Formats: sequence, C-alpha cells, structure tokens
Amino acid sequence: MKSHILSQRLLGMLLFLLLLWPMGRGLGRATSPEDPARAPILAVLNEQQAAWNSGDVDGFMKGYWNSPELTFAGSSGITRGWQPVLARYRKNYPDPQAMGHLDFSELEVRPLAKDASLVLGRWHLQRSSDELGGIFTLVFQRFPEGWRIIHDHTSSDAK
Amino acid sequence: MKSHILSQRLLGMLLFLLLLWPMGRGLGRATSPEDPARAPILAVLNEQQAAWNSGDVDGFMKGYWNSPELTFAGSSGITRGWQPVLARYRKNYPDPQAMGHLDFSELEVRPLAKDASLVLGRWHLQRSSDELGGIFTLVFQRFPEGWRIIHDHTSSDAK
Repeated sequence: MKSHILSQRLLGMLLFLLLLWPMGRGLGRATSPEDPARAPILAVLNEQQAAWNSGDVDGFMKGYWNSPELTFAGSSGITRGWQPVLARYRKNYPDPQAMGHLDFSELEVRPLAKDASLVLGRWHLQRSSDELGGIFTLVFQRFPEGWRIIHDHTSSDAK
Repeated sequence: MKSHILSQRLLGMLLFLLLLWPMGRGLGRATSPEDPARAPILAVLNEQQAAWNSGDVDGFMKGYWNSPELTFAGSSGITRGWQPVLARYRKNYPDPQAMGHLDFSELEVRPLAKDASLVLGRWHLQRSSDELGGIFTLVFQRFPEGWRIIHDHTSSDAK
C-alpha cells in the first residue's frame, strides 16, 4: 500500500515535470540572449532607406564607414573610399527621379564577432519609368560612433 | 669646461639615438605580426583553383563550410546550404569544357576578428568558346578543421 502511494507520487511528479518541460524550453528560447548587434544594425539600414527616400544621398552615406578603406563592389568593379562611393551614387542617381523609392527586405544579420556582422538582404528600387532590384552583402563593423558598413557588394537580379 | 664636455656627450647620445630611430622603426615594421589568417586563407583559395582546373567540383567545394547555413549570393539570388551550392555548380558547369580554366587575382584579405576574415578578389574563366569574369566577396570563418567560406557573393562584370 505504501509503495503504491509512492509510485503514484512518482508518477504525479513525472507528469508534472513532463508538463513543465516544453514551458521551460519555450522560456529558454524567449530569454536566450538575442544578438545585440541586430537592432542597431537594422536601425542604420532603416535610416539609410529613409534618407534615400527623401532624396538625401549624404544622409544615406552616413551608414558607411567614413574611411578611404571603405569598399563597394558592384558590376563595374570595386570602388574604394567613402568619397568615391559617394561620387558613384551621385553619378548613378543624379536626381530624385533617378533615385526613386528604395526598399530593403529579407534582411538577415549574422554575427561574425563582437564587433563584426554579416548582413544579407534584398533591395528594390521603384521609379516612375522602371524598377530595379537585387541582393546585397554588407559587412558591418562597430566603431565608437556606432555600426557602419565597411564593405558593400551589391548586385542586380539577372534580367 | 666640465659642462661643455657634458653637453657634447649629450649631443653625441642624441645624434646616436636619432640614427637608431629609423632602424628601430624599420625593425618594428619587419617584426610586426603579420595577419596569421592570410596564408591559410590563400592556401584554401589556391586549392579551390587547382581543384576546379582539374575538373574536380567536389575538391573545389572543400573550401566551403559544409553546413546548411552556407550562403551563395549571385545574379539568381541566394542559394542556401552546402549541398544546394554544389548542385548549382554542377548544373552551371556540367563538364570540363563548361568549367574552363579558373584564375583568382587581386586577392585582398581583411581581418574582421581572430576567427573571421573578409576576402575580396577577381575571378576569370577562360573557356574554349568564351571568357567570363567578375568580382567576389567571401566571408571566411575559422573552424577546428580550418578556414572555410561561410558566405560567397559572386558577380559578373557588366557586359
């Protein structure tokens, strides 16, 4: 009789633990440390998008590392340095009509180290005359002033 | 008289130190630690090139992180996972004639962290019927088995 009560208690405890288990797992997921770089990096990209869409190329350029070592890789090769990257944008998008409306989507932030992250995403440009799009690879590094793009590889979708 | 000798000695020491200064700087440069990731990363790329040029796609794939999280960005979008990246290469380059002769050049290794590096470079494919080329961005990460590409963004030169 005593051992019967004991095994009932054991069974009760086991059932209780089994019920708790998925909750614990859920809590574990919910309280696991999020990538601390994600929010500030997404904020930089959000500001870039907003600047572009108000025709502000200088504002857009704030997301890039202001250094002669900044690199931009595209279909015309590699552009080196913040100033030449700005000049390239000014040349390719001389006015608000050419700039159109920019949207980033499918953003994916992958931590590489405490101060470095890889970002993949898709860009889309809607203009009155046409639309363009493609994918990009960004390497972000954290500086005292915040997270900045140190390398951008942007390509267009195959026609 | 005594202070005259003293100032002569001081002047002599100063001249001696000034002569040593550039040597010290030179030595400092010569003995400064080189990026330890550079040689093993260039070796991986060298092996990839050699494997490709002997028609060995599996050998070429050894440079990539064998993971479902491997990403390859190209003009047809993002391919995810080692197996799908291999399948993409097999589809686009079905035989030695399609594979042609591959050359990497203008390789640039930029350390991001102890275990992560950014590599930029140029690829060129010489085939009997045509030639192709473009640039690539690689993100390398160091694993127990060595440095492997965890993300590849490859684009073709504008026609």
